[in-house]
Amino acid sequence: MALNQREFTTCKNTVLRAGLLAEGARVVREKMLPYQWEALHDRLPGVEPSSAVRNLRIAAGEERGEYHGMVFQDSDVAKWLEAMAYRLATHPDPEWEKRADDLIDLVARAQQPDGYLNSYYTIVEPENRWTNLADNHELYCAGHFIEAAVAYYEATGKDRLLHVVCKLVDHIDSVFGSEPHKLQGYPGHEEIELALVRLYGVTQDQKHLRLAQYFVEQRGQKPHYFQLEAAKRGDEPSHWAQWGHRYNQSHLPLRQQKTAEGHSVRAMYLFAAAADLARETEDHELFQVCDNLWENTVHCRMYVTGGIGSQEHGEGFTMDYDLPSDTAYAETCAAIGLFFWGQRMLQIDPHSKYADVMERALYNGILSGMSLEGDRFFYVNPLEVTPALTETRWDQRHVKPTRQGWFTCACCPPNLARLLTSIHQSIYTRSKDGLHVHFFAESDVDFAVGEHRVVLSQRTEYPWSGEVQIDLSMEQATDFSLHLRLPAWCKDPKVKLNGEVVSDAKVNKGYLALTRRWQEGDQVELDFPLPVERVYAHPKVREAVGRVALQRGPVVYCLEEVDNGPNLSAIVLPERPIFRVARDPKLHVPVILVQAYRLEQRDGDLYSVQAPQKRPVEVKAIPYYLWDNRESGEMLVWIRPQE
Amino acid sequence: MALNQREFTTCKNTVLRAGLLAEGARVVREKMLPYQWEALHDRLPGVEPSSAVRNLRIAAGEERGEYHGMVFQDSDVAKWLEAMAYRLATHPDPEWEKRADDLIDLVARAQQPDGYLNSYYTIVEPENRWTNLADNHELYCAGHFIEAAVAYYEATGKDRLLHVVCKLVDHIDSVFGSEPHKLQGYPGHEEIELALVRLYGVTQDQKHLRLAQYFVEQRGQKPHYFQLEAAKRGDEPSHWAQWGHRYNQSHLPLRQQKTAEGHSVRAMYLFAAAADLARETEDHELFQVCDNLWENTVHCRMYVTGGIGSQEHGEGFTMDYDLPSDTAYAETCAAIGLFFWGQRMLQIDPHSKYADVMERALYNGILSGMSLEGDRFFYVNPLEVTPALTETRWDQRHVKPTRQGWFTCACCPPNLARLLTSIHQSIYTRSKDGLHVHFFAESDVDFAVGEHRVVLSQRTEYPWSGEVQIDLSMEQATDFSLHLRLPAWCKDPKVKLNGEVVSDAKVNKGYLALTRRWQEGDQVELDFPLPVERVYAHPKVREAVGRVALQRGPVVYCLEEVDNGPNLSAIVLPERPIFRVARDPKLHVPVILVQAYRLEQRDGDLYSVQAPQKRPVEVKAIPYYLWDNRESGEMLVWIRPQE
Repeated sequence: MALNQREFTTCKNTVLRAGLLAEGARVVREKMLPYQWEALHDRLPGVEPSSAVRNLRIAAGEERGEYHGMVFQDSDVAKWLEAMAYRLATHPDPEWEKRADDLIDLVARAQQPDGYLNSYYTIVEPENRWTNLADNHELYCAGHFIEAAVAYYEATGKDRLLHVVCKLVDHIDSVFGSEPHKLQGYPGHEEIELALVRLYGVTQDQKHLRLAQYFVEQRGQKPHYFQLEAAKRGDEPSHWAQWGHRYNQSHLPLRQQKTAEGHSVRAMYLFAAAADLARETEDHELFQVCDNLWENTVHCRMYVTGGIGSQEHGEGFTMDYDLPSDTAYAETCAAIGLFFWGQRMLQIDPHSKYADVMERALYNGILSGMSLEGDRFFYVNPLEVTPALTETRWDQRHVKPTRQGWFTCACCPPNLARLLTSIHQSIYTRSKDGLHVHFFAESDVDFAVGEHRVVLSQRTEYPWSGEVQIDLSMEQATDFSLHLRLPAWCKDPKVKLNGEVVSDAKVNKGYLALTRRWQEGDQVELDFPLPVERVYAHPKVREAVGRVALQRGPVVYCLEEVDNGPNLSAIVLPERPIFRVARDPKLHVPVILVQAYRLEQRDGDLYSVQAPQKRPVEVKAIPYYLWDNRESGEMLVWIRPQE
Repeated sequence: MALNQREFTTCKNTVLRAGLLAEGARVVREKMLPYQWEALHDRLPGVEPSSAVRNLRIAAGEERGEYHGMVFQDSDVAKWLEAMAYRLATHPDPEWEKRADDLIDLVARAQQPDGYLNSYYTIVEPENRWTNLADNHELYCAGHFIEAAVAYYEATGKDRLLHVVCKLVDHIDSVFGSEPHKLQGYPGHEEIELALVRLYGVTQDQKHLRLAQYFVEQRGQKPHYFQLEAAKRGDEPSHWAQWGHRYNQSHLPLRQQKTAEGHSVRAMYLFAAAADLARETEDHELFQVCDNLWENTVHCRMYVTGGIGSQEHGEGFTMDYDLPSDTAYAETCAAIGLFFWGQRMLQIDPHSKYADVMERALYNGILSGMSLEGDRFFYVNPLEVTPALTETRWDQRHVKPTRQGWFTCACCPPNLARLLTSIHQSIYTRSKDGLHVHFFAESDVDFAVGEHRVVLSQRTEYPWSGEVQIDLSMEQATDFSLHLRLPAWCKDPKVKLNGEVVSDAKVNKGYLALTRRWQEGDQVELDFPLPVERVYAHPKVREAVGRVALQRGPVVYCLEEVDNGPNLSAIVLPERPIFRVARDPKLHVPVILVQAYRLEQRDGDLYSVQAPQKRPVEVKAIPYYLWDNRESGEMLVWIRPQE
């Protein structure tokens, strides 16, 4: 791996032109961000008021009233601002920029004279700042404001929010640290760590990097800070502490952690920050810690959809291979967190094992979080839903059988917004010797090799088609390497260069390297055949063993009741299924059709020595992320093959 | 069906001689009852003190101290006394009878002058008697004292406890009823209803029957009593009321109920009482209500082990076909309750559909509740256990991977004790025209036909052998019918009469009727072949579909880690398994051996397009009820067949 921090850099100037990701970004831009703007201002009918903007007004002394919402309600505003920043960067819009500027002004006015910024504590218990890091979210909210400030500065050049957060960080730096007069604490919910590294990227202020390091390294040290602060309050530590502090990854110092534990969003943000630090500080050991945690996460604790978090209790991980389909948590934010972590890993070590997982999460467990219209959201993304059970089974009460308009804890919708508005930044990275193409999407990127400007354009309908055409344009012939990811799901990738099959190119960590003197008009064609694959889980996955998931390219498919009737578990694939792929007239994407069977009981007995009979049925599978966009009903990913 | 209450009567004089049930009764007699005696007296080391006897002493004013335990701690004493009564009836023992007499004296002394008897309210809040029927258990405890009193009177002829409970019932009758000055209430936990019918059987006091009827019929009427009493207390109704009062079957009047809902032990006791009332009052409509509920319970909501209750939350039913294996509740008491209910149904309508279910429960989900030694107990009886998961998964925290010495809520051990010490009473019923043989066990029964005495002896090793020899002995030839149950699990029963194959006998509701003039020395031989069967669940059972359970005769088998290694879910039966049955040298019962496969992942990937490979392994299955009698570890009932 390359821990030289400048070896790989994000291509923020990428332009996403068309296709699924561009459509996702468009929906966010045109529907979701305006919808969330209304939500933040409590103007959505029939939806629980967010009060997020109102809280800031009260904190700024401009309105009277009580604080409402979660203690981290500020973060919804910050995440919206961050998403709006990406949106303004790609699609400038003076009206929305004005609104964002005004909102930033409000945030600035809500900041206290000493730099402190948190509307909950400012309104509700100003005397208790920084007394309950374990359960409350002051540093978490600060982190989101920092990310928003960096993004807004990069998008618009405006530094008002950047000044606000720098002042806030100065304040935080005066409170936390190893010096005896400071608190030796760290956030209960990680986020500020990665935000501080981003801030450092803009400010180059070592203080910002050092504070990130402090929070990451101090976590889990003994004596345990969350016990100390609880004792100081005369309180018991949060009940999560019974679980050995796993809940917030403070059970061990990070460098001793070998498995992904606890609340999965928190874990992802911590691991992403650790990767950032490994890169910035060229810390090989820390990178290795991250890589080990990555391996554990994606090889033992991840759903086939890229979702993570096996149970609602603690919103987190349970143990290796425990991946229940129906009681899954698989929070949208956690899959997004996994993507963010992958972005960091990929910039240190461009290995397709990261991009493969990011792609799995993106096209499945992330996109599932929002409706096609961008105004309904899943927080929890199980792999099997029986609507009646979600009302009957206590262990499924967190599962919503249909997307919701908003949430009391509304972390996921704005997280989706900031991911999708910035998704173009993940497609390529500029490497010292050229360019890595991580993802396939209709897009252009403009980069310099030495003094030469090169424009690379991808034309593709990926992920619905596996054909990708890459055109290169440049003023004069230029030497560089083009590193093209060969997706792990593809058994037989074909690559042509200017019409000629490429057979001798080196594949390095899953990337095909084309190193040559490139010319204006050079063309690379990729062809990833997209057969429908039956995917098998590791036999230790109790809830998926003996079942198969259908996957085409990176897209995992599912069965829905609207297509296949109820009792989806009784559907059985034949031993040698013949899959047909057809474009669905309503969903406008390829769906899978296959002749299968339905098990039917002969005599109505609950238990019988007679095997159920098989009635032939045609089964239709649609992309998982698209479920619940027509009628609410059952959904199933892991299908039974014939016995 | 025959609602003439005297048409079918229990044969209480049956003598159980040997075999699995006799062994169960012996363990209870020799180990469990003495062990529970110690438990009730807080003399078990390392086990949470019961305080049950101590509470009675405090209530009697003979000891000072605070009440400890559940509000229904009295019922543990009552159930122990009831079990001891059955034990003394079959195995008189002056020492234990003395102890029981003394305990009964203590109960009598704890009774209040007005007849009230409940140590919790007497000690803790005497002013609040009968103010919270929904959540507390005064009437439930009264019911158990009544059952104990009847059993003790029938076993020993001593009526001290009978007088106590009659006085208690007089008091209860003065408090509850339709008259305006009385409370129009009924118990939150049913039990007293069936107890009152038993009491009526001894006293023939119509008041006892009428009170049982009142409680059953008043349940679920509007306005809802549990809401009224909560309002009277200035309280909210218990949180269970949010679920529409299903939790305690008061969501509807019983006659309108069509599905088994709520807490499953409560449901069983209510339905058993309703069957009792149907019989005593010759109420065809009420019997039909019971029969419909039976059909729903056993065809839609029962585990293959006869366990019921699909979730820990509310310890109850969820919805049709929802039978998760690993998060199951399947409380030992609930399976026992199902057996009790079946007993009642069988005495109204001797249909093998009741006995088949009772047998399923008895040999599987009931016997599993205790260790071979009789001193360790399961409260919860899931069909799949992964010990590590019970510590990690919140929805499995109720599952104990190994039997426990005692419980804070110790309802199950004494329930097992009273069932097994009285199990001989269930084997036969005397019918107007002869005798019904419901169950197969080495036993003798003595009955009169007109003036003639007949002795029937069964010789069998059932359930390990399907051969049953029935010898009849009488002083002179006698006309009567012998009704022999043909178990539903047996496809090809063979019956011989005096060595001749019987081929023309009528089968009525699952019972073969042999009607003739019987002679001294007549012999009937039954032969139920016992192949190992693969049992399939109804395809609507999501958690069992595509799997098979192994069953031999009425005994359901399971896999244990101690025999088969961990990851039992990765074991696959071949398409045409060849089962061998061998006697296990340690467990002393037939176990099933079969060549099978273990799925193994080729590359360690969590998800792969390559099907896992199959490694041949020999698999051993043991009777489900015997699991966790060697080493703790994984256990699995529903096994995957080959795809």
